[in-house]
Amino acid sequence: MFKMGSIAYTSGQPDLSHHINSKSRARHPSPLKEIIKFMGQDGMISLAGGLPHPSMFPLLNAKFDCLPPLSDPSIESNTVSLDISRNSTSGKLDLNEFLQYGSGAGNKKLLSLTRDLTERMHAPPCEYECLLHPGNTNAWSKVVGLLCEDDDYVIVDEFTYPSAQALWIPLGIKATPVSADEEGLSAKGLQKLLESWDEAKQGRKRPSVLYLVPVGSNPTGVTISLQRRREIYAICVEFDVIIVEDDPYYCLQYPQNTPSQHQPTQLLPPNEFLNTLIPSFLSMDIEGRVIRLESFSKTLFPGLRLGYFVANPLFTERLLRATEVETQDPAGLSQAFVLALFENWGVDGYLSWLQGLQLQYKTRKDWLISAFHENFVVLPAAKSPLPHAKGYVCCIQESVGGKLLPVFSFEDPEAGMFVWSKFYFHGVPRFTKLQGQSLEDPEQAFAQELWEAMAAELVLLTPGSYYHAWQGADKVSTVSRGAEPQSAHFRFSFATPSKEQIQEGVKRVRKVVGQLWGNAV
Amino acid sequence: MFKMGSIAYTSGQPDLSHHINSKSRARHPSPLKEIIKFMGQDGMISLAGGLPHPSMFPLLNAKFDCLPPLSDPSIESNTVSLDISRNSTSGKLDLNEFLQYGSGAGNKKLLSLTRDLTERMHAPPCEYECLLHPGNTNAWSKVVGLLCEDDDYVIVDEFTYPSAQALWIPLGIKATPVSADEEGLSAKGLQKLLESWDEAKQGRKRPSVLYLVPVGSNPTGVTISLQRRREIYAICVEFDVIIVEDDPYYCLQYPQNTPSQHQPTQLLPPNEFLNTLIPSFLSMDIEGRVIRLESFSKTLFPGLRLGYFVANPLFTERLLRATEVETQDPAGLSQAFVLALFENWGVDGYLSWLQGLQLQYKTRKDWLISAFHENFVVLPAAKSPLPHAKGYVCCIQESVGGKLLPVFSFEDPEAGMFVWSKFYFHGVPRFTKLQGQSLEDPEQAFAQELWEAMAAELVLLTPGSYYHAWQGADKVSTVSRGAEPQSAHFRFSFATPSKEQIQEGVKRVRKVVGQLWGNAV
Repeated sequence: MFKMGSIAYTSGQPDLSHHINSKSRARHPSPLKEIIKFMGQDGMISLAGGLPHPSMFPLLNAKFDCLPPLSDPSIESNTVSLDISRNSTSGKLDLNEFLQYGSGAGNKKLLSLTRDLTERMHAPPCEYECLLHPGNTNAWSKVVGLLCEDDDYVIVDEFTYPSAQALWIPLGIKATPVSADEEGLSAKGLQKLLESWDEAKQGRKRPSVLYLVPVGSNPTGVTISLQRRREIYAICVEFDVIIVEDDPYYCLQYPQNTPSQHQPTQLLPPNEFLNTLIPSFLSMDIEGRVIRLESFSKTLFPGLRLGYFVANPLFTERLLRATEVETQDPAGLSQAFVLALFENWGVDGYLSWLQGLQLQYKTRKDWLISAFHENFVVLPAAKSPLPHAKGYVCCIQESVGGKLLPVFSFEDPEAGMFVWSKFYFHGVPRFTKLQGQSLEDPEQAFAQELWEAMAAELVLLTPGSYYHAWQGADKVSTVSRGAEPQSAHFRFSFATPSKEQIQEGVKRVRKVVGQLWGNAV
Repeated sequence: MFKMGSIAYTSGQPDLSHHINSKSRARHPSPLKEIIKFMGQDGMISLAGGLPHPSMFPLLNAKFDCLPPLSDPSIESNTVSLDISRNSTSGKLDLNEFLQYGSGAGNKKLLSLTRDLTERMHAPPCEYECLLHPGNTNAWSKVVGLLCEDDDYVIVDEFTYPSAQALWIPLGIKATPVSADEEGLSAKGLQKLLESWDEAKQGRKRPSVLYLVPVGSNPTGVTISLQRRREIYAICVEFDVIIVEDDPYYCLQYPQNTPSQHQPTQLLPPNEFLNTLIPSFLSMDIEGRVIRLESFSKTLFPGLRLGYFVANPLFTERLLRATEVETQDPAGLSQAFVLALFENWGVDGYLSWLQGLQLQYKTRKDWLISAFHENFVVLPAAKSPLPHAKGYVCCIQESVGGKLLPVFSFEDPEAGMFVWSKFYFHGVPRFTKLQGQSLEDPEQAFAQELWEAMAAELVLLTPGSYYHAWQGADKVSTVSRGAEPQSAHFRFSFATPSKEQIQEGVKRVRKVVGQLWGNAV
């Protein structure tokens, strides 16, 4: 019988070891690790290690000049300096620790920091461990290697980050999508999917992994509401589903402008700030069934290739076994930089930095929404020609008669980098013509032409088709996916372009729409 | 039919695409990559990217103080300083390039450098590409993901690095080992294995992947001779086998003390130095069937987590697809450091640094061999009580009669960090007793007791059993593996301990041997 290490469940958490797939179960610790225990003994001489001698490492000292947590990036003189030396004394970081091979789990001080951050931000009610990883791309790859058998189904949002899927499509894994509304993934949809799953018909067991980007989702920008989170968690308990909470945008939730706080530039005290963040799935995880993927890519910088898992020790132990043979520790300079930065900033400083980030992303989002208003007639959906659309509808006015034609709807996001839009093709002359050509997927054909027309006008959006949940080669077209006819999605990103580029970009979108939407101005 | 991208074979190289396994074939480029082509157009405004804005990255400047290539590490003042700034001008490295998400392939300048290094060091006769990876552990994981189907066999040396095997044991892959002599893997053994492979009997197709650590092998320390390399390559051509050349110790070949060069501290000119290095498998690869794993872990430092593949473009293209969804680029600070170091040192400076390294490792190896001489009677095998052993035999003298008892044999390595030893248990009282107990594996039982006795005496070696090729759970014992009875291996590492520790460590080994080998002094 399979026994998983030394994990004892005294806390009443359920035993979730049946979620570990056959390959992950078959992993054994490296025998070399056995020796490491002995190496620490007083007076021990080890002729057993295979580590190169640190005297042969050419790097002596690393120094990083950084912004302070509360900074105006235009003032260059306002910097803090992080110095990391070899064999440093007086309790400072020792660069030697970051140049040598690590244990797989990551530097102990950095692990301790990730635990402090986790307690401050999520205070998980279950037993958990942290484990470093080299970015959420790799983290998700390891989680698939932990939980999924080939040919499994994974539950995802109907619009899902394509690289997350590209990883597992070659394994024969398919998505079983659940639709979402403005509060996020539909709890009813999830419930229905799970309770009506027919193993015989589907040829596979009921899915037991739910993959979510729960804040500022890529691509939809949606943040799952607190109430919806509770419903989803309860359903996952009922149907024994593991929730993979891939949450790189968690700290990019926009500051709330409540009447009492109409000065968004004024920072909140750290704990008050933390209270403004929506509770994570991890924070409500009494059973240890949430695997949270944390990343510094969006809060510090992506080139670090550094993040961490927070999960049930049952899972982190297996993830560590995979780490030992698949990646080893994240890069040492990245670990040293993050640790030195936190030693200088403090966790409270980091929380201030995050508030600055939030404001910057909100400002950028507002630039895009303003550009919509400058170029379109923007109406709340209920008052628009498409009363059943979600959020807001951007319309243009017919040159003759002044009738409002809906072009696309969008929702105003509460977090992240993206505005997700749904374009409506009803009555658009070229689309009507394509419909008459008995194509398999006229919506996709027109969306492609629309994208190309925008690219010719020198503005790029991301086609929504990139984000369709992969249900197999036979479920790609608009009809076969069961998607709404005469429509297609596009993603607007406001993270990278300047204010002027955003304004000019939306103006170009408007120009192309004017050309294609017929006789509109 | 399966068509692999745009690789055209005009050079007469054979098409090796049948080596790509089913999962790797099923990988598709991310659709997002399509958009990147458009992003570079003049005047294009992209609202499509998902990259965070660089103004929100807190790192402004990185400065690394390093040793010069020809340095005395004891003189601290003798350092070079690498400064990497944001938005730097005048052709210097721009830190911005290393903070943002990369393309998966790695920084272009660094890729270009790896190509320069490859041309200088190996001048491959086939078409090839370089692709960065985050260390050889991950590189080997990606190669298994490229070439091996679950339950395949992989050809390895009978003693193989355990983490390389730990990766694929859970996939059901097994080793099919080939024995080695002082010139490395036996070409005859390889030939016999391949030509006598019985698909029906083995239940699997003939193995088509050969995994090798061809220089200073871990654990055996053996470097495959040039003649043997040619024989092995020819056999791999004949039987259509892909050679995975995992070569982290390539640059740790010890300087040769030929009569005309008895001053090992005098550096050779770079090209003359390169001529002293044994030609790699890559350098003789006219067919594009070598996948070479290069690492900076042993030549700069392991915490970089940075290396590169050199391989047929057919393979690097598929490895890049895996990189995009499994790891992304190696860490940016590691890439920036290596590039800045090479810009300062130059490739010739790096080649000088390597000569310094070689000398240091050779010096360390000599410390160990000297310690053997100080504690044992060391004889060439032919003149020892074990004339058929390999290399040298360390003996002790009986207290009564002065007869020489052989304890272990070893070979004096030409590269790397390890001396591999074979202990002989014949006539050792405790071993004889264990043999009488009808144990399944008395050799392993005694080797374990010997290891524990040494650990109790505060000296650690690495048990040879860690390196046994994994042939399945039924082929673990000495007898079932077909290994020589009354013997077991241990690995001595001289990379990390000091001279004094090496001397004292071997003294402790001698003490334990004195206790266990009966009435010897």
